Amino acid sequence: MPFRSLAWAPSGALRIIDQTRLPNEERWLELDRVEAVVEAIRMLRVRGAPAIGVAAAMGLVASLLASTKLARERFLALVDAAARELADARPTAVNLRWAMDRMLRVAHAAQGASPAIFEALHAEAETIRAEDEAMCLAMGEAGQVVLRGFEVRGAGFEGTARPEPRTVRILTHCNTGALATAGIGTALSIVFVAHERGVPVHVWVDETRPLLQGSRLTAWELAKAGVPHTVLPDGAAASLMRAGEVDLVLVGADRIARNGDTANKVGTFPLAIAAAHHRVPFFVVAPSSTFDASCPDGAAIPIEQRAAAEVTRPFGQRVAPAESPVFNPAFDVTPGTMIAGWVTERGVVRPPFDHG
Amino acid sequence: MPFRSLAWAPSGALRIIDQTRLPNEERWLELDRVEAVVEAIRMLRVRGAPAIGVAAAMGLVASLLASTKLARERFLALVDAAARELADARPTAVNLRWAMDRMLRVAHAAQGASPAIFEALHAEAETIRAEDEAMCLAMGEAGQVVLRGFEVRGAGFEGTARPEPRTVRILTHCNTGALATAGIGTALSIVFVAHERGVPVHVWVDETRPLLQGSRLTAWELAKAGVPHTVLPDGAAASLMRAGEVDLVLVGADRIARNGDTANKVGTFPLAIAAAHHRVPFFVVAPSSTFDASCPDGAAIPIEQRAAAEVTRPFGQRVAPAESPVFNPAFDVTPGTMIAGWVTERGVVRPPFDHG
Repeated sequence: MPFRSLAWAPSGALRIIDQTRLPNEERWLELDRVEAVVEAIRMLRVRGAPAIGVAAAMGLVASLLASTKLARERFLALVDAAARELADARPTAVNLRWAMDRMLRVAHAAQGASPAIFEALHAEAETIRAEDEAMCLAMGEAGQVVLRGFEVRGAGFEGTARPEPRTVRILTHCNTGALATAGIGTALSIVFVAHERGVPVHVWVDETRPLLQGSRLTAWELAKAGVPHTVLPDGAAASLMRAGEVDLVLVGADRIARNGDTANKVGTFPLAIAAAHHRVPFFVVAPSSTFDASCPDGAAIPIEQRAAAEVTRPFGQRVAPAESPVFNPAFDVTPGTMIAGWVTERGVVRPPFDHG
Repeated sequence: MPFRSLAWAPSGALRIIDQTRLPNEERWLELDRVEAVVEAIRMLRVRGAPAIGVAAAMGLVASLLASTKLARERFLALVDAAARELADARPTAVNLRWAMDRMLRVAHAAQGASPAIFEALHAEAETIRAEDEAMCLAMGEAGQVVLRGFEVRGAGFEGTARPEPRTVRILTHCNTGALATAGIGTALSIVFVAHERGVPVHVWVDETRPLLQGSRLTAWELAKAGVPHTVLPDGAAASLMRAGEVDLVLVGADRIARNGDTANKVGTFPLAIAAAHHRVPFFVVAPSSTFDASCPDGAAIPIEQRAAAEVTRPFGQRVAPAESPVFNPAFDVTPGTMIAGWVTERGVVRPPFDHG
């Protein structure tokens, strides 16, 4: 599993794959200006809660490379302004704010002149990146437990046939793989680790309207890794559950409140309702950077409203009358009570989440 | 409300608006060959359960116009073959089979030579068309009762403020208007009648992936009629219900079994689950031609699987890897137990539906 969507370019710039071009084109971008990083985050060239946190940290460092000759105070003012701009690029994922808070603490704690502050920031961004990569593997490991019990058929009681291995059928929404993180993913890390170990898995991939992160990105990652999967319109997921074709649902998260209410890509909440209706276990997979200890519940999570054109002009083709208003929230909130467990790098946890 | 999507052309051909071109182009087609009518039904140039029943009846007649010089037996053989082909154009909507059964009964009961049979068929197709138009108005009328109670705010008890009129907020899926029928629609007829009478309504329009009949067709009809509405991705409907922004759900149907199980456009079932979860009343609106007395329950309804390209290549642009398999059922089945009532031209009814 060698694919990484975020890296340092030899020049010191942030190197990302432009996710808006997938699955048709693997186009890499090198970014070294704050405005370019903000644009890439806003336009979803890089997306996924962990990935935008890491990209903002690395992008901040890349943008400072040319300014290390400034005096300490002017350099710190530049850091503050850039971090604020990056933190505000998108409102819902808490990882962005979390990463900028870490970078600002390091900048202001660093001793010495601008080059020393720059070095401390570079080290911190690299730590954030490496931690995220490691957390992905840890989540993939910790999540194997939620697949157990689905891998065998037959009770295995004495006198009956030996349990027969069978495919674990996982349904997912949006993209939670290498493209959404600095490592191999959150929810998809569980799939990748299981697949690598020979656990037979099949992934039902919600296409995820309006921006089709499921069909464009998740299917692309799964195809690349040779994981069996099938793409479906979001509205067809409930029919699969009713037909008994889904063992469990695994999704990521953009922000998790103390009571477990979880913001994730729009379409997650109706999936949780359908899963509850059919008694299909529904798990959230996210690193600890996604838990917002300052947020009591879902009502306190800001939900980003995005442009109408994402719905009415996909790929430049008009599919609704010009005068029709549009409701296009990027996220929804699933009540914590509908979630079976939260898989983190520390294991499967449950609310209240009192410490971050 | 003068717009009609199905008509006789002066030449005797079937005249339809090509729904695949909407909302960008109002292109009318005149069809007088069975293959062309079958193609139009399969490609969804004409769609909607009542509309395809009417279109098949009128198209059958149009296709026979040039053959009335044939001997009676050869003419009847032609009618049989054409009706069979039209009935098989799509499998789920029962209205298609129902209309062809009516036409075949009339053809074989008609006395005399081919021109007399043709005249009987022409009259029957016109009756089917006119009945559908009348049933739309009757459903619009019968359905006003389900809007009541939402039009006023405040209890109106003695000593309290007078009830205050307010907007009835209706959520709908797919297209159930003039484009789906020979009249003003099924579920949308209730909206059009209410709007014309000055009842304030606002319609939340599910875009309805994969073919976007909601954003392309329903929003176009509502905009044309001046009815306030907002388009949304299907996955955002549950968030609106949770926010208390939906008073009731109105959808159409493609086939209704004796126990009330109802096949409709894929995405209807998850909407019904979300409505049940939030205690939002969920109504089906359909003429009696949609009730299949030979069908005991939803398991007996054939569900059409459509081409992967509808999901993976919308508007010719690839949005999933070429090797990714696709699950693309055109319909799903909502259990009758989740439906508050069925609005028909005869009023609001409930199962068991023992007679057709």
